[in-house]
Amino acid sequence: MINGLTFKVDIDDYIMDALKEDITWGDISTEAVVRGKVSGHVQLIAKESCILCGIDVFRRTFELLDPGTVFETEFRDGDAIEKGTLVGIVRGDIAVLLSGERTALNYLQRMSGIATHTKKYADVLAPYNTQLLDTRKTTPNMRPFEKYAVTVGGGRNHRYNLSDGVMLKDNHIGAAGSIKKAVEMAREVAPFVRKIEVETETLEMVQEAIDAGADIIMLDNMDDETMKKAVEMIAGRAETECSGNVTIERLIRIAETGVDYVSCGALTYGAPIIDFSLKNLQPDV
Amino acid sequence: MINGLTFKVDIDDYIMDALKEDITWGDISTEAVVRGKVSGHVQLIAKESCILCGIDVFRRTFELLDPGTVFETEFRDGDAIEKGTLVGIVRGDIAVLLSGERTALNYLQRMSGIATHTKKYADVLAPYNTQLLDTRKTTPNMRPFEKYAVTVGGGRNHRYNLSDGVMLKDNHIGAAGSIKKAVEMAREVAPFVRKIEVETETLEMVQEAIDAGADIIMLDNMDDETMKKAVEMIAGRAETECSGNVTIERLIRIAETGVDYVSCGALTYGAPIIDFSLKNLQPDV
Amino acid sequence: MINGLTFKVDIDDYIMDALKEDITWGDISTEAVVRGKVSGHVQLIAKESCILCGIDVFRRTFELLDPGTVFETEFRDGDAIEKGTLVGIVRGDIAVLLSGERTALNYLQRMSGIATHTKKYADVLAPYNTQLLDTRKTTPNMRPFEKYAVTVGGGRNHRYNLSDGVMLKDNHIGAAGSIKKAVEMAREVAPFVRKIEVETETLEMVQEAIDAGADIIMLDNMDDETMKKAVEMIAGRAETECSGNVTIERLIRIAETGVDYVSCGALTYGAPIIDFSLKNLQPDV
Amino acid sequence: MINGLTFKVDIDDYIMDALKEDITWGDISTEAVVRGKVSGHVQLIAKESCILCGIDVFRRTFELLDPGTVFETEFRDGDAIEKGTLVGIVRGDIAVLLSGERTALNYLQRMSGIATHTKKYADVLAPYNTQLLDTRKTTPNMRPFEKYAVTVGGGRNHRYNLSDGVMLKDNHIGAAGSIKKAVEMAREVAPFVRKIEVETETLEMVQEAIDAGADIIMLDNMDDETMKKAVEMIAGRAETECSGNVTIERLIRIAETGVDYVSCGALTYGAPIIDFSLKNLQPDV
Amino acid sequence: MINGLTFKVDIDDYIMDALKEDITWGDISTEAVVRGKVSGHVQLIAKESCILCGIDVFRRTFELLDPGTVFETEFRDGDAIEKGTLVGIVRGDIAVLLSGERTALNYLQRMSGIATHTKKYADVLAPYNTQLLDTRKTTPNMRPFEKYAVTVGGGRNHRYNLSDGVMLKDNHIGAAGSIKKAVEMAREVAPFVRKIEVETETLEMVQEAIDAGADIIMLDNMDDETMKKAVEMIAGRAETECSGNVTIERLIRIAETGVDYVSCGALTYGAPIIDFSLKNLQPDV
Amino acid sequence: MINGLTFKVDIDDYIMDALKEDITWGDISTEAVVRGKVSGHVQLIAKESCILCGIDVFRRTFELLDPGTVFETEFRDGDAIEKGTLVGIVRGDIAVLLSGERTALNYLQRMSGIATHTKKYADVLAPYNTQLLDTRKTTPNMRPFEKYAVTVGGGRNHRYNLSDGVMLKDNHIGAAGSIKKAVEMAREVAPFVRKIEVETETLEMVQEAIDAGADIIMLDNMDDETMKKAVEMIAGRAETECSGNVTIERLIRIAETGVDYVSCGALTYGAPIIDFSLKNLQPDV
Repeated sequence: MINGLTFKVDIDDYIMDALKEDITWGDISTEAVVRGKVSGHVQLIAKESCILCGIDVFRRTFELLDPGTVFETEFRDGDAIEKGTLVGIVRGDIAVLLSGERTALNYLQRMSGIATHTKKYADVLAPYNTQLLDTRKTTPNMRPFEKYAVTVGGGRNHRYNLSDGVMLKDNHIGAAGSIKKAVEMAREVAPFVRKIEVETETLEMVQEAIDAGADIIMLDNMDDETMKKAVEMIAGRAETECSGNVTIERLIRIAETGVDYVSCGALTYGAPIIDFSLKNLQPDV
Repeated sequence: MINGLTFKVDIDDYIMDALKEDITWGDISTEAVVRGKVSGHVQLIAKESCILCGIDVFRRTFELLDPGTVFETEFRDGDAIEKGTLVGIVRGDIAVLLSGERTALNYLQRMSGIATHTKKYADVLAPYNTQLLDTRKTTPNMRPFEKYAVTVGGGRNHRYNLSDGVMLKDNHIGAAGSIKKAVEMAREVAPFVRKIEVETETLEMVQEAIDAGADIIMLDNMDDETMKKAVEMIAGRAETECSGNVTIERLIRIAETGVDYVSCGALTYGAPIIDFSLKNLQPDV
Repeated sequence: MINGLTFKVDIDDYIMDALKEDITWGDISTEAVVRGKVSGHVQLIAKESCILCGIDVFRRTFELLDPGTVFETEFRDGDAIEKGTLVGIVRGDIAVLLSGERTALNYLQRMSGIATHTKKYADVLAPYNTQLLDTRKTTPNMRPFEKYAVTVGGGRNHRYNLSDGVMLKDNHIGAAGSIKKAVEMAREVAPFVRKIEVETETLEMVQEAIDAGADIIMLDNMDDETMKKAVEMIAGRAETECSGNVTIERLIRIAETGVDYVSCGALTYGAPIIDFSLKNLQPDV
Repeated sequence: MINGLTFKVDIDDYIMDALKEDITWGDISTEAVVRGKVSGHVQLIAKESCILCGIDVFRRTFELLDPGTVFETEFRDGDAIEKGTLVGIVRGDIAVLLSGERTALNYLQRMSGIATHTKKYADVLAPYNTQLLDTRKTTPNMRPFEKYAVTVGGGRNHRYNLSDGVMLKDNHIGAAGSIKKAVEMAREVAPFVRKIEVETETLEMVQEAIDAGADIIMLDNMDDETMKKAVEMIAGRAETECSGNVTIERLIRIAETGVDYVSCGALTYGAPIIDFSLKNLQPDV
Repeated sequence: MINGLTFKVDIDDYIMDALKEDITWGDISTEAVVRGKVSGHVQLIAKESCILCGIDVFRRTFELLDPGTVFETEFRDGDAIEKGTLVGIVRGDIAVLLSGERTALNYLQRMSGIATHTKKYADVLAPYNTQLLDTRKTTPNMRPFEKYAVTVGGGRNHRYNLSDGVMLKDNHIGAAGSIKKAVEMAREVAPFVRKIEVETETLEMVQEAIDAGADIIMLDNMDDETMKKAVEMIAGRAETECSGNVTIERLIRIAETGVDYVSCGALTYGAPIIDFSLKNLQPDV
Repeated sequence: MINGLTFKVDIDDYIMDALKEDITWGDISTEAVVRGKVSGHVQLIAKESCILCGIDVFRRTFELLDPGTVFETEFRDGDAIEKGTLVGIVRGDIAVLLSGERTALNYLQRMSGIATHTKKYADVLAPYNTQLLDTRKTTPNMRPFEKYAVTVGGGRNHRYNLSDGVMLKDNHIGAAGSIKKAVEMAREVAPFVRKIEVETETLEMVQEAIDAGADIIMLDNMDDETMKKAVEMIAGRAETECSGNVTIERLIRIAETGVDYVSCGALTYGAPIIDFSLKNLQPDV
């Protein structure tokens, strides 16, 4: 569940922008055939089995067009539903149901797609201690929706953005001169509540990162064996994150290295959408 | 090429929102290791073969952070490039190169993904008169980027949004009472520059749409044979659009029905991203 | 009637901007004399006979200041009312009634002015098949209000803006090289739901436009006789629009040429306002 | 001249909103025929004699679309120009010239209309001490443009909005109980730099206003004779403003009453537009 | 009391910006421990004696996060309360109470601070005719809150901003050439409802200002004796304002010069905050 | 130094809002006396000794009004300057210098105030390992300016806002049931890059927090002796932060307890402003 205040301070603006993107000045098809206010309802049907995600965003899209719209559902984000499920009923002004349909579905199908895709990865990792993370490779202006969907699918969030986590990559290390220097510089200026993460590509770099006192060491594009050695070298002195070339097939081998976290951009950019449709619009009699 | 004024009135706001999504208050990693202004450059490398798309958006992302940033490239949107291609060099303040990287790439990889994906469909249709169209099943707040990418890949745009095209679907026809009535109502109120499109699912509906004088008749979820009959019935009195169950495998059979257009939501929602990276950041000496 | 969702996605922002234009930090006169919340009501009186237009915008202006405000009226946009008519009663916080008055009236008087003015033109054309159109010569940031008022007065809307209709004017034709070339270029890139309109000034240009397959041919600044010939030449192969030097006196002669549409910028820029006032403010006892 | 900082803090937002109103996603006609960047120029022609007003707004409209656009003119706001005058040349990207044309002209024609209209009133009053004022009956979201145009035409501005001037009208006086009480209440809370104006309709009210120490006394809807008596009664103890039923024909009689100011809503809402056009677009060779 | 419409047109935007400043994407602490919606309440306690100010802003902060939040209090802005007072109870979704707390208190503690500080100055002046004024030395984006708090504390507002009061300072006078010239120029262009104030530093300048017909003469940085002479010279022909080096210790001496107003920037920038806290959060049972 | 991209994505919006707060529609005093564009310069003088802070914000305020404005200075944020120092020269359009003055100074005086105040605390702590932190008790819509000023004065930043740091306070712990449970719940959902901080008031709570594996333990309102015991108990297993009743007099005693950090809201809310002025405006000859 996305809580109400997050909608107010963050989500509503995105949804309203999306509605304005789809409606410049009225919905001319709907205005043509619906003259005056007619109440009615329409069914939300899942056309594929999936992990449902985005129920509140779907509802809010209609509410932003008309606070009088009601979405009735017994499902919650995270529920596994079958193809053909009647997910719920949207009730309200027929013009609102018609005009909000596409935007509401565009969110729902992407969010459910990510939750469903993430669930597959998360299920593979379930028996292991390794946890699944997303990345910042999200669609522009979709981050809160996509990061939330990852959590619904059983993944966890890496940093939200550049302001709330320190990640020292090759280019940062190059700019600082060395891992040691980069970590020192970061510790000097970063808000003290942040952990400091360092990206490493070799065991030498791992050793440097340990010596520098990094809180998290990212093992980037390492093969399974090297990664395993890295985890052993680190020996709990820092948290470890596997990154790069992460496929669902390789997940178990990654987990068996003992790495704490595995991050995977494809959770958000590689998830197929889940098809939903609004069907059987009926005026209330 | 997206022209400059489109950036000013439309695109810049989206990109700036995306940058603010990724940077709340500074990029703490970069600020830690880059103290003061250091000029440098970084290479944009394509990690997959693709149809390049989003060059101007990529450039603008950096320019919005710092108008002094320069992106040098010999390529243009629509160029087919090989995996490993050095697409260009971004020159400017190193802090800007580091902080803008993710947002710029997030656009580029999605836009090139859609152009590349669309190109495959468009190539199949090239020998035929049938033209390829996108839909409104785009990612919220990504529509201008995604619709543009479709054109770069060789597709054409269907209506931009609910305000600029009349499409009478089953629910509209239901609300109006009949196809005939719906078309009349639409003709009565829609701005006269719009064509009126009617969605049909059976040959009876096709006949009604012809009689109603629809400008465009959508043949929705018909099998190839029915569609062929529909096209023959219409006999040029309206433009025809095939919609529903459109896969790349079926494209030729669709084209052979003689339909004028085929629309495909998967052009935008089903395109895998193309991987790019910024590499070899170097300070200028 | 402007439907509720159009207010949400488009109109509310304009009205709120107008309210902020008129109220920077409080209404110092009202705050001086109204201390605390006092409920009351005020009458909306038409000081001239007119076609009423803008009832919903008038109401919304007060609602945006205070959702508790109620506007009671038996009239609807399009009603013909006499000078002196009590159009309705606004009930609510007296401070809101006083502070919203000017902005609400500024919309109402302009919208009713345009509807009333348009009605005069539309009545002249009523016996003919020629339909009346507006143009883009609207007041900046008033377009949705003005275009809507035209429809209330019995006119129809031409394209809403530059994005939703193709109109190839002399300068576009010049840039393309010829009418034929311009139409081809437009057909190549314009979203397929748009009709393509070409501006012509001579019979030669009309012929070129016919040959190019234009959907609509604008007959610009032609005298009645030339226009008549143009309509005959076109012979239904394209829709026809008369533009330029359109006065109410000339309307019948234009209609008698058989042209399909006549567009007139003066519908929006030449309409005198209709005077309304809020009178007899009374506190509720 | 509108100074540069007023553009930055106020005007630019209005113009940008107007451009977005006219361009949702690209100018499809222009994009069709102008592929790539082509430099050119176009002439601004006055199609009616007028007092020119809005030169800077006209220029800025193009600059906001493209800072590289240049507007060359020898004229300034307030200049009287003849029908047919070549007012200036706009140079820049042809796409920008075509796409910005309508919005730029929509401002220019309204602002020049108001300046020209105001000038007629101001000229009548020139031999007298009575000064001409505008009102708040301006077009929503056009106030800064319209109030400025009044000053260019020789009028002066009344208060800008509800926050920066105290005007106690009948409804305020009713709410306070009496003129005396209303003025006291206003003096108590209004920022001390404001003058306090009281609306009066009878000589009794004028006397009350004098006694209450009003800074300005508005003589509302009085006939010439009553107004004259009011001015005599006031005898310089307050400034005087005539309001209501102000026509250009009556202006001299008003001025002869000795009233200090005369305010007239028709300066802004009753001004016919002045026709301008952009002609002879030429690419640079 | 700040009236409701001022919130709508002005205050809400500031508060919402402040909330977004404090909540980028969710309140991760609260989301962690409050899963689902739990109703509850929390006490607002004053930790210092003060003049209470900001009750409506405090309430609105929570309402903007969730319109269902209720703030119950028997106090009003301007009430003097003792340390330890239970000011009121906030009831609503516990997540909202937790997440809105800091922003709501940040406003309340500053506004009460200013009201309390101003009250001390105002009390000193109470026996005199000299009135206390604030300045424009307010915190950026806090002006409406701070200016309002001054009035709650017994002060009055000087001009709100640069647009609604004319103040000719040394630099303006220098630019104009002389006080006389500056006043003339101002009278020529300023909206007629504004008073014209001139800053003077010597008795010569005071004489010039009198001769120029200034409405208000500011006596800037004068010692008590000079100021007294200035007031005598002016002899009621203009209002007088003392400015510069205003301390609470010197207030009586200033008042005894007979000056009409004394302005003091420290009312807003020098007020210590008043400490409040939200205590004893309890879920409703 | 605030880097350029932070201005673009964050700071510019705040400054522009502040300028709009101070300039609704023009600066009427300046417009009256400065007709046309006149270049000139003005001196920025420090009227008190201080740690300078806000140089870039001061400059940007003028640049946002007019990009042509230049601020010449040899000083940088963090420099200690003496009363009377000529900090720099602002060059540009005189109207811009006059109109931007107050807003630019309002930022500069508050930011320098905080840096100067913080420096006093930081100097006391310099010989110790304990580091100084700010809090979220900042002025609404001033957080980036105030948090930055703390770092310039030698302090460090605690979390920026509710989204980027986990802090489990009494109310959160109450909602969760126990410290152990609260930490577990936080670890479950918080992005993994965040450290988890727990507020404790007694040694029992400290022990619980240790057992729960908190990353940071806040010792809230403890006396020096208890705090010392707490630090010993924790023995490096978590970072420690002292909070509550922090005065500059008590700082050394706090540092001697061995606590890692001490946070102090008064750094931002209790800092007196530093007075600066713009003097000697001169037109360029």
